[in-house]
Amino acid sequence: MTLTLEQNPADVAALATPFLKSLVSIIRATDSYGTWDKKSDASLLAEFIVTKEQRKLIPIIADPDPDIVGRVEQFYAAVGLGFEAETGLMASPMLKLTHEGFGRLLMTTGRLVLLSKTLRDIHRFGFESLSALADAGGKAISDAAAVAATYPEVARA
Amino acid sequence: MTLTLEQNPADVAALATPFLKSLVSIIRATDSYGTWDKKSDASLLAEFIVTKEQRKLIPIIADPDPDIVGRVEQFYAAVGLGFEAETGLMASPMLKLTHEGFGRLLMTTGRLVLLSKTLRDIHRFGFESLSALADAGGKAISDAAAVAATYPEVARA
Repeated sequence: MTLTLEQNPADVAALATPFLKSLVSIIRATDSYGTWDKKSDASLLAEFIVTKEQRKLIPIIADPDPDIVGRVEQFYAAVGLGFEAETGLMASPMLKLTHEGFGRLLMTTGRLVLLSKTLRDIHRFGFESLSALADAGGKAISDAAAVAATYPEVARA
Repeated sequence: MTLTLEQNPADVAALATPFLKSLVSIIRATDSYGTWDKKSDASLLAEFIVTKEQRKLIPIIADPDPDIVGRVEQFYAAVGLGFEAETGLMASPMLKLTHEGFGRLLMTTGRLVLLSKTLRDIHRFGFESLSALADAGGKAISDAAAVAATYPEVARA
């Protein structure tokens, strides 16, 4: 028997992390008419979960689905919010994706580059589980916060 | 009588600036079959020149022409090259434009943000004259170099 997202204890714990709470609030912010009011947080995050088996089945040809691009944007917006909560500094992500599913992400604050990543296989963007998603977001936030702590004057420039 | 681009002494001087030389080399690099070999530098740069009168006539509705987006990319690629020639540091521009012709440019090196600009009215991207184009590029390069000189360790981080 496979546990559903909400039944797995690691996933239940992940839902309580500040990162997933931010991500859920960003998703709910797009729900102008309250149609998702009765949806659980886990079900709103379900599309971020792509298991290894599912990943293999996703073709990486043709333009990445706008919904996937939207999820990448939401993920980094939540990283930016988490960074702001931790440091008090506003971070702005800038994402540029090609039609082939490659791309680049820059997150900056002041004159400082907090994150600079090359993105690949955007078509398959997703995480093994809610806890893997929460870990990835949490790690990006702490990486960014560490850079800001190393160069505090540049982060405020 | 209106002078053509090549006859105006200020424009002739502008063509000799390192910035316009870089820009021309970037444009010529896209000419795989040598069809522009006999075109003068000034005529290759002619599309960067948009006078005040012409500007007023360009509508800012609909998606910006891909050729214009290409010219904005070429302009900042040349700024990056000029910055590299001056400082020895590689700078990478990242440009993101919306369909409405607004956008954002970030140019970074190492962990340092060299340029961060909000772009508007991309539909009308252009300069009054070759010398105005050379001045704008030269200014962007010296602004970026000044930032790198202020935070040398971050530029190399």
